[in-house]
Amino acid sequence: MATFDPAPANSADIGVTGMAVMGSNLARNLARNGFKVAIHNRSVGRTEKVIENHSEDGQFLPSESMDDFVASLQKPRVAIIMVQAGAATDAVIEELASRMDEGDIIVDCGNALFTDTRRREADLRERGLHFVGAGVSGGEEGALNGPSIMPGGPVESYKRVGPMFEKIAAQVDGDPCCTHVGADGAGHFVKMVHNGIEYADMQVISEAYDMMNKALGMSAPEIGEVFEEWNKGELESFLIEITAEVLKHKDNVTGKPFVDIVQDRAAQKGTGAWTVQTALDFGVPVTGIAEATFARSTSGSVKQREAAIGVLPAETQDQTVEDRDRQQFIEDLQKALYAAKLVSYSQGFDEIAAGAEHYEWDINLGDMAKIWRGGCIIRARFLNHITEAYKRNPDLHLLLADEYFRGEIASCIPAWRRVVAYAAANGFSVPVFTSTLSYYDAVRSERLPAALVQAQRDFFGAHTYRRVDADGSFHVEWTGDRTETKISD
Amino acid sequence: MATFDPAPANSADIGVTGMAVMGSNLARNLARNGFKVAIHNRSVGRTEKVIENHSEDGQFLPSESMDDFVASLQKPRVAIIMVQAGAATDAVIEELASRMDEGDIIVDCGNALFTDTRRREADLRERGLHFVGAGVSGGEEGALNGPSIMPGGPVESYKRVGPMFEKIAAQVDGDPCCTHVGADGAGHFVKMVHNGIEYADMQVISEAYDMMNKALGMSAPEIGEVFEEWNKGELESFLIEITAEVLKHKDNVTGKPFVDIVQDRAAQKGTGAWTVQTALDFGVPVTGIAEATFARSTSGSVKQREAAIGVLPAETQDQTVEDRDRQQFIEDLQKALYAAKLVSYSQGFDEIAAGAEHYEWDINLGDMAKIWRGGCIIRARFLNHITEAYKRNPDLHLLLADEYFRGEIASCIPAWRRVVAYAAANGFSVPVFTSTLSYYDAVRSERLPAALVQAQRDFFGAHTYRRVDADGSFHVEWTGDRTETKISD
Repeated sequence: MATFDPAPANSADIGVTGMAVMGSNLARNLARNGFKVAIHNRSVGRTEKVIENHSEDGQFLPSESMDDFVASLQKPRVAIIMVQAGAATDAVIEELASRMDEGDIIVDCGNALFTDTRRREADLRERGLHFVGAGVSGGEEGALNGPSIMPGGPVESYKRVGPMFEKIAAQVDGDPCCTHVGADGAGHFVKMVHNGIEYADMQVISEAYDMMNKALGMSAPEIGEVFEEWNKGELESFLIEITAEVLKHKDNVTGKPFVDIVQDRAAQKGTGAWTVQTALDFGVPVTGIAEATFARSTSGSVKQREAAIGVLPAETQDQTVEDRDRQQFIEDLQKALYAAKLVSYSQGFDEIAAGAEHYEWDINLGDMAKIWRGGCIIRARFLNHITEAYKRNPDLHLLLADEYFRGEIASCIPAWRRVVAYAAANGFSVPVFTSTLSYYDAVRSERLPAALVQAQRDFFGAHTYRRVDADGSFHVEWTGDRTETKISD
Repeated sequence: MATFDPAPANSADIGVTGMAVMGSNLARNLARNGFKVAIHNRSVGRTEKVIENHSEDGQFLPSESMDDFVASLQKPRVAIIMVQAGAATDAVIEELASRMDEGDIIVDCGNALFTDTRRREADLRERGLHFVGAGVSGGEEGALNGPSIMPGGPVESYKRVGPMFEKIAAQVDGDPCCTHVGADGAGHFVKMVHNGIEYADMQVISEAYDMMNKALGMSAPEIGEVFEEWNKGELESFLIEITAEVLKHKDNVTGKPFVDIVQDRAAQKGTGAWTVQTALDFGVPVTGIAEATFARSTSGSVKQREAAIGVLPAETQDQTVEDRDRQQFIEDLQKALYAAKLVSYSQGFDEIAAGAEHYEWDINLGDMAKIWRGGCIIRARFLNHITEAYKRNPDLHLLLADEYFRGEIASCIPAWRRVVAYAAANGFSVPVFTSTLSYYDAVRSERLPAALVQAQRDFFGAHTYRRVDADGSFHVEWTGDRTETKISD
């Protein structure tokens, strides 16, 4: 096994530790962009492979030991960590921090939970070091060719790392898909919500596919062509594009449409659940993301499905779609997908706004949409409109209420209602189409039946209620003479 | 201010510390059932009030100091804590524990998060003490006259506390609404899910009310009469009963129906969110509870609603219900409510089963339904059928698939589908009606579009997929030559 001479001290612009595919691709991206990149991995084999296979990308300074790695970095040092979230990340942070000097910067590009990032940032700040939790989206391809980067942490450290990150990030219309998100955990928070939105996007796509497949009897390649068409309109996005690719792909073994030989259980790595759990803490109704997350869980509920399939009655109306209505049906699905997507994004931005308020992060919501336009999984043309909406009105409290989006959604609503009504009557499970419509009809409602819920709460738990015609909170002696008492102002 | 003589040492059967309304009512319930009850409160005023106002209930042994309180208990001592969840509970536990001897029992009857209960139980076990986290449902009334009690903790301690708890609990058909749930946090876990189900129950009731109100133009008292009727059938339950009461109540100030003067924002104390957050950890799709929890959040999203009301277009079909169809419409709502309720319970029991498996609690699911038949907020006649279902088949993996319940739901489905389709077309937000139907149609589906989601995941993140026709996990080189590689067996 080859060993490396120690890299020259203070010579690398930046370092990356963790040479699995994400880390090595990030390092290669940096090298390709002219930066001298120190690289390191716990076991030296992966480092060697990068040198062997990718030295044409640019200047790598490999180190076998953590000592050499840290010594090879220019001051103030910048070391990127790209290892497993959790305990592994904590361990590597400690290895780096114990070798670093005041003002040096540790960047975690892994998928950390934002509360871990907050804790780590506070710890390292106490020790005079800077910690940047940076969300990186785009998978392996993105890491190599230009991801979307969402760095949090101190503004000062962005001055040092920002220019490098902006150079290696995806570029859209001349703008990098990277900006300083906010203090401490803000970057990983925004990345988490990005992933939650991604869950919803994927689920609505699969709901539209499912209805074309089951209600219209279309084959996967036929549906793939529909998605290819949709990708030319306002739905244009990476996920629609790859959906067309996937649906048109034939399985090498059987010659059948590929998707038909894939087991119908969707796995998850947890960021969707985090998004929903965090939203529950804040009381932000991210129903689209929640239903998308639970839809994956349902698909993986093997015992429950085994107990139900062929046992639970369908009792559907079994309406068939007439040939003459097929085109209309497909157009309805396109509009339902777009409307459901807009609601999911609106809910996701509500969560970012709530997080920003709670943690006092100065997040520019429009900029978040801007840096998602390229590189990341939910990249899409329509994100421009979100940026514009927040430019028009920086105090916009509901994305859906923006003049552009409410116009867009208005043109979709009748179709959306038809799709949901058809699905309900005919036994199709479209949880995000339906849940987002329920939310839409709730948030625009002048009067919600929550009044009854609150009255019930007062009845059995003396939780009090507010009146529509007077300030203060009140309680009725329900089991007594039913007098009303004012409890507080 | 009066002071008490120290209570005789080792004379009380049981003690309660925390004399706010829940604690004093529990103490009174114990006293009424013939137990000698030591009572204590941080400030002596509340203790005095119990003695002043309720000494006819039985034998109270008041103590001013924690020393006297603990000394007054028979060994092995049993002390119930009924104070605020969180730090206050930890503080009182420490005050008790430091004065107790090996084998003594501390019971927390507050609404603790089950993970806190697990931590406390482990701590006290190390110190030779027993800790029982007991969920208590039924509000103030229940505490006084017979609650549903869900005690966790060591089986040995149930031998000491169980007979007392079973005596003060609600009794249904001669059985107490109390049983040992399982080790450490099992009691509070089950209580948490109980509360989650309660959220869903309250929300579906409010959805049915809302549609009668808005689609049929019925007044609150008219709707109250419908609920009164429903309470004579399979929906018979405490929540339907009090809904009828609330809807028929007139506001004393304005003479209007009471519910119409209540602000339409439902508050929450967190157990609904806990239930959903925990379910997300386990991957159990509790969509009904989630939508109910988020519906409360939406009602309280003041800024978003202000931005949306009068701004977001409705674009509804505005179907009117013909006079001749009104009765059918109301019957449909009754069936939709019942079906949605059954799904929520099925999902909730899935969560209890998942918790039991994860934490190795030996929970008898049928017994949980049994102890909810009386005392608690979701008490209802139909819970008997859940107990019977698990008796018929202790390995039942899906409550809905039980022969009784699938028959019940079959008779509801056409109505349920009509209600959801009507709501979607006409702009009513019925998130639990719809979400539970989506789940129902998913879990019974032979083939879910999750296959497409998993294929997308393999495309952008190399997350691999399983095939329907071979074991192992596979990956396609999507950006390369699209060959398939077997990744693992």
